[in-house]
Amino acid sequence: MPTSEIPAHLQRLLEQPNPAVICTVREDGQPVSVATWYLFEDGRIVVNMDASRKRLDYLRHEPRVSLTVLDQAGWYSHVSLTGTMTDLRDDPDLADIDRIARHYTQAPYANRAQPRITALIDVTSWHAWGPATKS
Amino acid sequence: MPTSEIPAHLQRLLEQPNPAVICTVREDGQPVSVATWYLFEDGRIVVNMDASRKRLDYLRHEPRVSLTVLDQAGWYSHVSLTGTMTDLRDDPDLADIDRIARHYTQAPYANRAQPRITALIDVTSWHAWGPATKS
Repeated sequence: MPTSEIPAHLQRLLEQPNPAVICTVREDGQPVSVATWYLFEDGRIVVNMDASRKRLDYLRHEPRVSLTVLDQAGWYSHVSLTGTMTDLRDDPDLADIDRIARHYTQAPYANRAQPRITALIDVTSWHAWGPATKS
Repeated sequence: MPTSEIPAHLQRLLEQPNPAVICTVREDGQPVSVATWYLFEDGRIVVNMDASRKRLDYLRHEPRVSLTVLDQAGWYSHVSLTGTMTDLRDDPDLADIDRIARHYTQAPYANRAQPRITALIDVTSWHAWGPATKS
């Protein structure tokens, strides 16, 4: 989905450091969700995780995900995106997780010891609800 | 999973009117998530939705779901549950959605016109993160 299909005011909302939950599907079909930091960059979702996460196996098996973003100003407004992971890459210098951590905490990521992996997700559809999602 | 396997302090957290996101799986395997009200009652998750929701079709096809609950006091603490829908029932008197709405808003549900459906979900596993989830 071209970024242009997400209305500009929703893009502005998605660019805030909002609470979010990502959902992946386990190899046996069980959906699995967890709270996550994310970035909305160039129309794509960027998430980053510890290299030991089982979620990486789920993503390699089923690249389709869902992300629900709750407006940081009040969760009655929320945006849910479906998407497909199109790239999974090492983050050897922790550049991605530092960028994400600064977005949420104004500081680099604290844990420098554990390897991290970045996933890039193309958005395939969106659904918005609540007053903050109206134009 | 018997309720007793969820530690008491996590049960207390789950009983608060927390922000939450439920994830279901579409017939074609795409995970779909959305923000939701929920209740944690007798060790089970109770959710309620408009009878026109596509999510009902997803649940009938794939009863396994995931629910991530963000601590209302700060989303750095969160609990994620996997579960299986074991009952799907009409809510003709809106008793369930009223109970849920009172839990979150201290008032009955505003929209009395639309039929509602209640789903009961047995918890199969849990995962907790953050300071508010420590005993």
